[in-house]
Amino acid sequence: MHIEVISNVNEAQSERFTHRTAIVIDVLRATSTIVAALEAGAAGIVPVETVLEARALQTGGNLIAGERFCRKIPGFDLGNSPEEFTADNVLGRRIVLTTTNGTRAIHKAMRADHVLVGSLNNAAACARTALELRRDIVLLCAGSHDEFALEDGLCAGLLISELQQLSPSPLEMNDIGSAMLGLYKSAGTAIHEMLQSSTTGKRLNKNGSGRDIERCSQVNISGIVPRMQGDMLVQS
Amino acid sequence: MHIEVISNVNEAQSERFTHRTAIVIDVLRATSTIVAALEAGAAGIVPVETVLEARALQTGGNLIAGERFCRKIPGFDLGNSPEEFTADNVLGRRIVLTTTNGTRAIHKAMRADHVLVGSLNNAAACARTALELRRDIVLLCAGSHDEFALEDGLCAGLLISELQQLSPSPLEMNDIGSAMLGLYKSAGTAIHEMLQSSTTGKRLNKNGSGRDIERCSQVNISGIVPRMQGDMLVQS
Repeated sequence: MHIEVISNVNEAQSERFTHRTAIVIDVLRATSTIVAALEAGAAGIVPVETVLEARALQTGGNLIAGERFCRKIPGFDLGNSPEEFTADNVLGRRIVLTTTNGTRAIHKAMRADHVLVGSLNNAAACARTALELRRDIVLLCAGSHDEFALEDGLCAGLLISELQQLSPSPLEMNDIGSAMLGLYKSAGTAIHEMLQSSTTGKRLNKNGSGRDIERCSQVNISGIVPRMQGDMLVQS
Repeated sequence: MHIEVISNVNEAQSERFTHRTAIVIDVLRATSTIVAALEAGAAGIVPVETVLEARALQTGGNLIAGERFCRKIPGFDLGNSPEEFTADNVLGRRIVLTTTNGTRAIHKAMRADHVLVGSLNNAAACARTALELRRDIVLLCAGSHDEFALEDGLCAGLLISELQQLSPSPLEMNDIGSAMLGLYKSAGTAIHEMLQSSTTGKRLNKNGSGRDIERCSQVNISGIVPRMQGDMLVQS
């Protein structure tokens, strides 16, 4: 089995996903938030690329959620903080979500046979599901504004580490995959500190969203594996 | 002082180099070979992008050297193996060099105030020279065929580690810089093994150039810091 890591959404040409399972990673915060929303009992998450598309889908009991530049969009029901996605707010609801990088990355991956959503929170469960799907795997790090984001690379490294532990045969990977595995190993128990020091981590801290960093840093606290079915992410 | 790592030549827009010192890295093998050539007493290395340009400069005692896809170019005096660049072959000579990725990366960096050449072999000396030039620093990993190459990322991490040790004030860096520093720390003493496992390393082994990997893996064996002056790299 081959694992390919793509370091940011700008490098994600659609042919790289054909016949593969994609795992989309945007640790701070879109993919952590999607996991939290399903964990809290949301019926599903519809990722869309623009604010306009989200507003057009604000019908039939749908909630609309999202951010631009780490801030909630005016008039939206929810922002992009996992903490907002509680059972009180989202149980049984369909959520239309648009974020600066994460939802764009999910759309880039749509050519894949299967699209999963990964985060530090659900890495082991996500790796297990991906292996069961028996395809080569592409880990798409969303990054931030077309640049590599440290937290997404770290999560790619964790996912490779989990895949290695679960896979019955040795895994091949591209060079950026080997590098991210090395990065993850070097982090040891300092994952929260590494997220704090990342570009997005610093920006979130400045915006008063430091608690989100803490939550998004927690490894394997959820068994939820969001998976694209039609236009909606649901629990697989 | 700010350190920016660019993970492959494809991401190297020229404005990223303005008012900065660039260190170009192509460990397997162009920048290791350039260090070896100056160490052996070559008068200078003229990096050119095409085979045609190199042939046009085969005059006045110049040697022409280079590779395409890890193999020596037919009719050239030398290939791109550091071992070929001995005093017997190159002492006092000007060498025109063209390689698949490395010389292209050097040309991309030409907008910088200063262009240095880095490798595992000369990392400490290169870091010292770069600090003395008192500019923000861009580490350009040449990569391979527009993709990230593990050995170049590892060298970027080593260079940052050397810069941190030498710099009187704390360094800031972009996220890919932090990731490469983590990668370098995770490698420990297994640098040669990491180069063997890289995509280019495997290709060189297949072509019978395994000894080059060993040589290019050696950390801080040279005090030579190649630096662009006009159209030629000379000892700084």
